[in-house]
Formats: sequence, structure tokens, C-alpha cells
Amino acid sequence: MSSQPSHPSLLIPGPIEISDEVSQAMGHYAQSHVGQPFVNTFGETLTQLRQLFQTSNPKSQPFVLAGSGTLGWDLVAANLVEPGEDVLVLHTGYFADSFADCLSIYGAKPTQLKAPIGDRPQLPEIEAALKEKKYKALTVTHVDTSTGVLSQIQALSDLIRRVSPDTLLVVDGVCSVGGEEIHFDNMAIDVCLTASQKAIGCPPGLSITMVSEKAMDVFKSRKSPPGSYYASFKNWLPIMQNYEANKPSYFATPPTQLVQALNTSLKSILSNPISDRFAQHKKVSDYVKSKVKELGLKELASDPANAAHTMTAIYLPEGLTPPEILPKLMSRGVIFAGGLHKEIAAKYIRFGHMGVSITDESRGEVDKALNALKEGLAEVQQAKGQ
Amino acid sequence: MSSQPSHPSLLIPGPIEISDEVSQAMGHYAQSHVGQPFVNTFGETLTQLRQLFQTSNPKSQPFVLAGSGTLGWDLVAANLVEPGEDVLVLHTGYFADSFADCLSIYGAKPTQLKAPIGDRPQLPEIEAALKEKKYKALTVTHVDTSTGVLSQIQALSDLIRRVSPDTLLVVDGVCSVGGEEIHFDNMAIDVCLTASQKAIGCPPGLSITMVSEKAMDVFKSRKSPPGSYYASFKNWLPIMQNYEANKPSYFATPPTQLVQALNTSLKSILSNPISDRFAQHKKVSDYVKSKVKELGLKELASDPANAAHTMTAIYLPEGLTPPEILPKLMSRGVIFAGGLHKEIAAKYIRFGHMGVSITDESRGEVDKALNALKEGLAEVQQAKGQ
Repeated sequence: MSSQPSHPSLLIPGPIEISDEVSQAMGHYAQSHVGQPFVNTFGETLTQLRQLFQTSNPKSQPFVLAGSGTLGWDLVAANLVEPGEDVLVLHTGYFADSFADCLSIYGAKPTQLKAPIGDRPQLPEIEAALKEKKYKALTVTHVDTSTGVLSQIQALSDLIRRVSPDTLLVVDGVCSVGGEEIHFDNMAIDVCLTASQKAIGCPPGLSITMVSEKAMDVFKSRKSPPGSYYASFKNWLPIMQNYEANKPSYFATPPTQLVQALNTSLKSILSNPISDRFAQHKKVSDYVKSKVKELGLKELASDPANAAHTMTAIYLPEGLTPPEILPKLMSRGVIFAGGLHKEIAAKYIRFGHMGVSITDESRGEVDKALNALKEGLAEVQQAKGQ
Repeated sequence: MSSQPSHPSLLIPGPIEISDEVSQAMGHYAQSHVGQPFVNTFGETLTQLRQLFQTSNPKSQPFVLAGSGTLGWDLVAANLVEPGEDVLVLHTGYFADSFADCLSIYGAKPTQLKAPIGDRPQLPEIEAALKEKKYKALTVTHVDTSTGVLSQIQALSDLIRRVSPDTLLVVDGVCSVGGEEIHFDNMAIDVCLTASQKAIGCPPGLSITMVSEKAMDVFKSRKSPPGSYYASFKNWLPIMQNYEANKPSYFATPPTQLVQALNTSLKSILSNPISDRFAQHKKVSDYVKSKVKELGLKELASDPANAAHTMTAIYLPEGLTPPEILPKLMSRGVIFAGGLHKEIAAKYIRFGHMGVSITDESRGEVDKALNALKEGLAEVQQAKGQ
């Protein structure tokens, strides 16, 4: 039996449902942040993250900070780019605009490469842009939570290595890590930033980042000091290294219960081959998308090849809006999210399918959600006499 | 019966023991950060904070962010001080050095006024400093967690209003809010920053700040943009205002479970007059200090008038070190902290007495700790043949 009280199924693109074990870990009794039991747990968690991101280079550096996913942008902007340097920002929705804003605050010069809604910038135009100017970094949203568009990390990486090998590849993996295939080493990623509350299956409150050896070298050779105090690699690097060596260390108090929850979730994730986890997310995503099509609904993603496997953004039938349909889902025990992309927010809804809701099929949440969507649409359309 | 497994009593100056209700709130099921149930909880929590800080000015602005207490310094440095402006930093230990570092990162020019260890800067020297130069802000650590020294906020505030009324009074209340007397309005405080894991009685992971109307006006009239993205008032102000008006809003995902825990803790704190809570902290602190004296031990605080009520920093007998005594306490189910002030870290220990461990006397944790200290010291001294 679940230890959590009965509640609607949270099927938005994060936060997501958490397992009973993770929920229990959140209620962990108070621990000293510098006492050996917690130090060992945090150390193990950092090592687990190496496995999750699939990096075996000991000089790859994990960071786990109290913060929202957004804090990962500050980590990149304040540590890896110096004032005046150019950054190429691939735009697939809401989050590129915000990342660009963040870069500007710290003095970088972002150039956005925008794709039409539902699409992603194409390799030839990215190649042309990279040849035009020297970019310190290229940022890409792996899964754009606002549109459900998936970007191709391997192809991007290949392009960068060929055309502009000094450019750092920065992957915003907030809605992808733990659900979409990421192989930090093989894909030659320099930064992959994420948050705890998406496909990793934890409550929100942790900013989680993996940084490559190359990016750490870039950081170490920067001329200006980091542009942030709380988000400074300089302040956190010795702390993370000490914790991973099971040595107590202090810069700011880590959120001990959230780290316990992350440790618990990662233990569960890593108890099976990570490739099985990616395959399960893909299988369920394909199923959801086929059912959405059966309902006569259209995805935002313009092509199956650029559709995420952790979520589906779905256009509503002409004339229907999220405030009409979402309560019908809620009355059936299902929570979806409304639109987030400013230009079309009133026209679509978002269904997050990641973590325990899809790895534990006995929960039956995916079919419950699809049925709720079908019935809810019918109810609204009937009421409107359509 | 407690819902938390048996564990050693965490009596360090934060994180502290949490109540069963708070622990259960941490295990709250997943909620949408923009769904009405959580929006209402967050809104209520922000209003509760007005009561905790004792401000009735509707233009005082609470901020609750995912982050460690340290993030509060970035909030001040990135939003309220502009590059090149002077800040007077009152030094009572470790934390002033760090706050000064943070201010420098964002371009401010901190001037430290240092007191001897165990003491605090005196009003006449502060007055002289304020007359010498125009300071944008003065920062003071209300309770310095590294030394247990208490600063006098009311007297400081009176001085500032008299000598340099434009200077913002910034109180680092990380180890004080919820335990030491703070009256935001009466004391004319401009910023009071704190964290969740000290006298507020929550797990770590939340940065909590109250900002005065005057300070918000200073922010709104700044010439340069805020120096941080994640810690920007510009990004968070509309979010906090919307949540408090029970309207969904999004900049970055708040840590929903930690907010539930904070709401639960504040509900308990505010169910009794806040003055009773301060009195209870004072009563237990006086008791601890009298017992420490009975044991022949000396406090770091040079005078009872500048000793905190939320913690006690205790010099060990000559020749004894924290690594010798702390395990003896641990074997008796009590966790104290070692020294933190670099110059004397090996000579003292720290006892945090705040929150549920002292408001719920039936837990018996204070006497358990004092007995463990007495027995532990005797054991070490016997083993050393002293």
C-alpha cells in the first residue's frame, strides 16, 4: 500500500509523482550536514550521478546545490562565460529566452537561433552560425518543457567538434535527464544541467549539474572572477570534492532531506540498466502519442523525430482552451499542465510521462490519463454543442 | 509516539531537530507548483512570514526561494547595492568575512569593522565609521553562528536613523529568526535574511528574506540591472506577489515539499504569542549558560549581554579538542558542532538550543545534552589522566 494519501495523479512535465521510498526519504530525521552519516550519503549521491549521466572520466565534476533548475543557468553564465563573450542559444521555446536573459545578466552576448514553434533549429543553419563567429558556448534545451520538442545532442556534438571544437556544448537537461538518452562522455557534453523534480523522480529543490573536464579547465583559466557568489564553482568545487571523498566540508548548508531523497531515487534508477529506463520512456511515449493521434489530436512537435519521450504537448481541438479541459481532467483525478509558450499558450496542454508513473505500470496512470483526456474532451464538446 | 526513527539529538546551531508534523509535511505527495492547492499554501506561508517577522506594512516584501541561507547574501548584494557603493560590514566572526566576499563579487566595496573574538563592534566606533563615509548599507549578523555572539539590532537601528538615515540596515538573521526577538517594523530593519533550518524548525533548503518598503524602493530606483538572474528581485517580485494573492505564477519551480514544511512549522510557531517563544528561548539559554558555568567552562561570548539565546559557544578545558569530546557526546546520543571560527576552531564547541528541542520540554533534550557534556568531559579527562 502506498504511504502517501490518495491524491490526483500529477502528470505535468514536472514536478512528477514520487515513489513511496522517495517520499519517506524526504521525512528523514534531522542530520548534521557535516556529520559522517550525511557526508557519506552525499558523497555516494555524487558518485551515483556519474552513473546517471554516464561519465567515467573522474575529472567530470558533479554539483548538487539547493536551488531550482533555473539556478543551473546561473552556474553556466557566471562560471563558464566571461563578460563580452558570445554564446549561441538554440531556441525551441520558452526556456531559450530565459537562458539568454540569464547569460546577458552576467555580461555574455547571447545570439538566439530560433525555430518555428514545434521545430528545432536545423544543423545547416547552426553550422553556418558557428562559422560566422567564435562562440564560447552553444546552449540547447534537450527537451523543451514548453513545447515538448526534443533536440539531437549527438548530432549537435558531432557538428561542434567538426566546425568549432573549442565551443562548449551546454545541454539544458531539466526535462530530459533520467528519461531521455544522455551519455555525457560519448556525446562529448560539456555541461548538462537539470533539476530534481523531473525524470529523476525527486521533489523540487535541487539544481543538479555535471561539468566536463574541459569545461572545468575553461573555468579554471578564466580571467575575471565568477559573476556569482552562491552559484560560484570556486566556492562549491572543494565542497563537492570533499563530500565525494567522504570528508566533511562547509560553504553553505546542503538540503539534507532532499539529498536523502535524491540518493534514494538514484539507487532505484541505477538498480536496473539505464538503457532499460530510456527504452521504457520511449515505449510509453510512443503509446501516448499513438493514442493522442487516435483521439484526432495534433502534437506541437512538428515531426515524430523531434518529439520528446518524457512529455507530449498536445493542441486542443479548435476553439477549446486549457481552462475548459483541465478541470475535467482534475475531476477524473488527473493533472495536466496548460500551455507555456506565450504565442500559443491558450491552444494546448502538456502531459508529462516520466518517472514512477511510467516505470511502474501497475500504477495505471498513463491509461487513466488518456481515458480522462478522452472523456473530458467529450464532456466539454458536448456542453458546447460541438 | 514520534513518527521519526530513534536517532541522536541534533543540537548544533542548525540544522536542528524537526517536529513530527514538519517531518510528515516533508513527505507530502507531489503537487503542481501552479495548482491552486499549492498556490494557496505558498500564499498563506508568505503571509505567515509577515507575522513571524512582525511587520504589518503591506509593502514589506517576503521572499522564499529554493536555496541555502547563503543565497540571502546574494539577494542583498545583487539587488540592493550597486557596483562601487560602500557597505559597512560588522564583524563578529566567520560570516562577516563571507558576506563581505559576496558583496565584492557583485561590485560593492565592503569595509569591515572587526571586534575581538567573542565581542561585537561597539556603537561609538560604528558611529564614527558611519560619519566617515556614505554607506549604502550596514550589515550585521544577529547571532553569529561561529561565535554565539548576539548583536543589538534596536540600538544599531537607532544609531543609523540618527547618524546616517539613508543607510539600509541589513540583518543576517540566519541563526536568530524564530528564536531571538525581531520586530521588523519597530526595529526599522530593511532586510532580514534567514534560512529554514535554524530556529524556524524546518529542514534546510529555503532562503527566507523580508525586505522593507524602503529597501524595495531603493531596488526599484537602481540604475544598473540586478547582478544575478536566479537571485534577482526583478524576477521574483511578481511571483511572490502573485502567490500571496493566491494566483499561480512561474519563474522557477519552488520546492513544494519544503514550502509545505515551512507552512506547517510556521502554523505551529504562530499558534502561540511570538513573545512567549522568545521568552522560552531566553529561559533555556540562561539555564544552559548557568550549567556550563557550573561545569567550570567558559563561553566565547565575552559578556552575558552579547551572548545569543539560540546557541552557546563553549571553550573546552585547556588541552582538550572537539575531536576528543564530540564522539563522547555522540555515544550518549547528542550531536554538538565543532568550532568554526578559523583562529580558534580547535578550542571550542557549539551547542544549538532552538526550536522543538527547547519549546517541547518533554523531549528532555537540553538536560540530556548537559549531562552528556558533563560525563563526556569527565571521561576524556580521566582517559588523559587529568
